Amino acid sequence: PGNIKSMVINFTRSITKIGKDDPRRVFHSLKVAFALTLVSLFYYSRPLYDGFGVAGMWAVLTVVVVFEFSVGATLSKGLNRGCATLLAGALGVGGQHLATAFGEREKPIVLGILVFILAAGATFFRFFPKIKARYDYGVVIFILTFCLVTVSGYRVEQLFELAHQRLSTILIGATACMVISIFICPVWAGEDLHKLVASNIEKLANYLEGFEVEYFHCSEGKEKCEKSVLEGYKSILNSKASEESLANFARWEPGHGRFRLRHPWKQYLKIGVLTRECAYKIETLNNYLNPEIQTSLEFKCKVQEPCTKMISESNKALNEISSSVKTMTHPSAAKSHIENSKTAVEDLKFVLATVSLEDAELLTIIPVATVA
Amino acid sequence: PGNIKSMVINFTRSITKIGKDDPRRVFHSLKVAFALTLVSLFYYSRPLYDGFGVAGMWAVLTVVVVFEFSVGATLSKGLNRGCATLLAGALGVGGQHLATAFGEREKPIVLGILVFILAAGATFFRFFPKIKARYDYGVVIFILTFCLVTVSGYRVEQLFELAHQRLSTILIGATACMVISIFICPVWAGEDLHKLVASNIEKLANYLEGFEVEYFHCSEGKEKCEKSVLEGYKSILNSKASEESLANFARWEPGHGRFRLRHPWKQYLKIGVLTRECAYKIETLNNYLNPEIQTSLEFKCKVQEPCTKMISESNKALNEISSSVKTMTHPSAAKSHIENSKTAVEDLKFVLATVSLEDAELLTIIPVATVA
Repeated sequence: PGNIKSMVINFTRSITKIGKDDPRRVFHSLKVAFALTLVSLFYYSRPLYDGFGVAGMWAVLTVVVVFEFSVGATLSKGLNRGCATLLAGALGVGGQHLATAFGEREKPIVLGILVFILAAGATFFRFFPKIKARYDYGVVIFILTFCLVTVSGYRVEQLFELAHQRLSTILIGATACMVISIFICPVWAGEDLHKLVASNIEKLANYLEGFEVEYFHCSEGKEKCEKSVLEGYKSILNSKASEESLANFARWEPGHGRFRLRHPWKQYLKIGVLTRECAYKIETLNNYLNPEIQTSLEFKCKVQEPCTKMISESNKALNEISSSVKTMTHPSAAKSHIENSKTAVEDLKFVLATVSLEDAELLTIIPVATVA
Repeated sequence: PGNIKSMVINFTRSITKIGKDDPRRVFHSLKVAFALTLVSLFYYSRPLYDGFGVAGMWAVLTVVVVFEFSVGATLSKGLNRGCATLLAGALGVGGQHLATAFGEREKPIVLGILVFILAAGATFFRFFPKIKARYDYGVVIFILTFCLVTVSGYRVEQLFELAHQRLSTILIGATACMVISIFICPVWAGEDLHKLVASNIEKLANYLEGFEVEYFHCSEGKEKCEKSVLEGYKSILNSKASEESLANFARWEPGHGRFRLRHPWKQYLKIGVLTRECAYKIETLNNYLNPEIQTSLEFKCKVQEPCTKMISESNKALNEISSSVKTMTHPSAAKSHIENSKTAVEDLKFVLATVSLEDAELLTIIPVATVA
C-alpha cells in the first residue's frame, strides 16, 4: 500500500508540474473536451441513425483528429482534411465512373489497378520534404477518401448523397475545432516562435554573464552562480525541430496581435540557425569551466581585463537584440555595443589570439542577421 | 510551354533523386499500395453492404493510417490502435450502461458529462512526455472510440455486434499492415539507428582527416579536399530528434538479424549524445578554416607535427570505434590509438596549450561510452 501511495503522490506531482509549466495545456484539454461534447451531442440528438446518423460519426472523428494545441496546427490539419476530402471525393467518383464503363466483370480489376496506382503514387509523394512538412496529413486523407469512395460499391446517385452528408459533417467538425481554437484562449504558434527565439538569445546573454563570474571570479571566493543559468543554453542546441514546426504552423495562422499576415517567419528560422551556431561555440567555451582543466592564474590575469570588457559588451549587445526582437524594434543600441566589443577583441588579440576567437565570430555573425 | 517543360523536368529529377537516395522508399510505396488494394478488394467483394459492409471501411481506414515506413512504427501504431480500441470500447459500453440507468431524460446530460471528463483527462494525458513519445496515437484512438461508442445511441445488444464487426475489421487491416511490413522487404528502425550512429562517428573521423589536409597542407598547393567531407558533420548537429524517434520505434520491433529482443537501444542514444558533443567541438574547430582568420605560418609550423600526429591517431580511433559499432565487436584497437593521441596531445601542450584542447576532450569522452 505504501508503494501505491507513493505512486499516486508522484503521479499528482507530475500532473501539477505539467499543468504549471504551461497552464495553456489545461485550457487546451478543456477546449478539446468542449468541442467534442458539443459535436457528440449534436450527433446523439439526431434521431435518424440509419440515414444521416452514421455520417455524423465523421464529425466526432474530425474533432478528435484535427484539434491540435496551436491555432496554426489546427487550421493546417482542418484545411488539409477539408481540401483533401473534396479533391479525393471528386476523383473517386470519376474513378468509379471509369470502372463501371468497363463492364461488371472487369470492374473489380480496374478498381484494384486504380487504387494501387493512386496509393503508390501518393505514398511516394509523402517522401518529398516540402509535402511532408506541410501537406502530409492531407495526402493521407486523400488516399483514404479515394479508396473509400471508389470501392464503396454504391451507385453514383447514392454516392453524391453520401458525399454530401460526409462533407457537411466533416465541415461541421472542422469548423467547430477552428472556431473554438481561435476564439477561446487561442495558442498562437507564431507567438510561441517569437518568444522562443527571443528567449534563446537571452539565454546566450545570461550564459556569457554567468561564464564571466564563474571563470574570473571564482578564485575570489564569491558564490558560484546558479547552475540553471549556465545550462540554459543546452536547450538551444537541439531547438531546430521545434522551431521549424512552429514556423510551419505559424504560416497557416491569420494575422493576430502585432503579427500581420505574411509575417516574415523565415527570418525567425534564420535567427534561430545563428543562435544555434552561437550556442555551439558556447558549448566549447563551456569546457573551460571544467575543473579538470586548470589554467594558470598568470594567464587569467593577463587576459582578464579585455575579456571581461568583451564579454560584458557582448552580453549587452545580445540583451539588446533579444529585447528588440521582443518589442519588434530596430536594435540601434546593439550596434555600439558590438563595436565596443570588437575593439575589446582587438585589445585581446594583442594579448593572445586564440582562446577567444569564438566570441569574435559570435559577434560578427549575429548583427548581420538581426538587422536584416 | 517552356516554363511547363522545365517544371516537368525538375519534377522528374526530384522524383528520381528521392527514389535513388533511398530505394526502400519505392518499395514502401508499392507495399502500401499492395496492402490497400488487398483490403479494398476484400471490402468490395463482400456482398452485404448494409450489414458488415460499412464496418469494412474500418479496415481501409486502418491500413491507410497505420502503415508507416519502418516496421517499428507500423507495429507501434497497429498495437496502439488495437489496444486502445478494445479498452475504449469496453469503457464505452460501461458508460452507456451507466447513462441508461439514469433514465431517458437525463441520459444525454450524463453522456455529455462523461465525454467531457474523459476527453479532457485523456487530452491532458497526452502532454506527459513519456505518453507523447510512445502512446500518443493510442490515446487519440481511445478518445475517438469512447465517444463513438457511448454516443452511438445503439442498444447494448446492437453495440456488441457492432463492436465485434469493427474490431474484427480493424484487426484484419492491422494484421495485413504488420505482416506485409515485416515479411516483404522490411525496413527495420533498429537497423537504421545502428547505421546512423556508426556513420555519424565515421563522419567525424572523415572530417578530422579533411581538416588536417585543409589546415596544414593547403599552402603547398595541393588540391583542396572535397567540400562534402568537410560538411558531413553538420548533419550530426541536429540528429537528436531522428535518433530518438528511431530508438522509440526500434523498441517495438521483434528480434531480427543480429539484433536481439531487448537490444540496448538506450546505449545508442548515449553514443548519439556524445557524438553530437564532438560535432559541436568540430563546429568550433571548423572556424579555423575560415579564410578570414589568418594564422601565422610560423605558428602553424610549430604546431604541425604534434597536431598531425594527434589528428591521425584520433582519426584512427574514431574509425576503429565506428567499425566496431558496425560489426558489434569490442573496439580493442581503438584504445591504443587513443593512448597515442593522448601522448600527442601532451606533446602539443608543451608547444601551446589552447588551440587543441577540444580534441583532447573529444577523445577522452568517446571511449568511455563505447566500451560501456
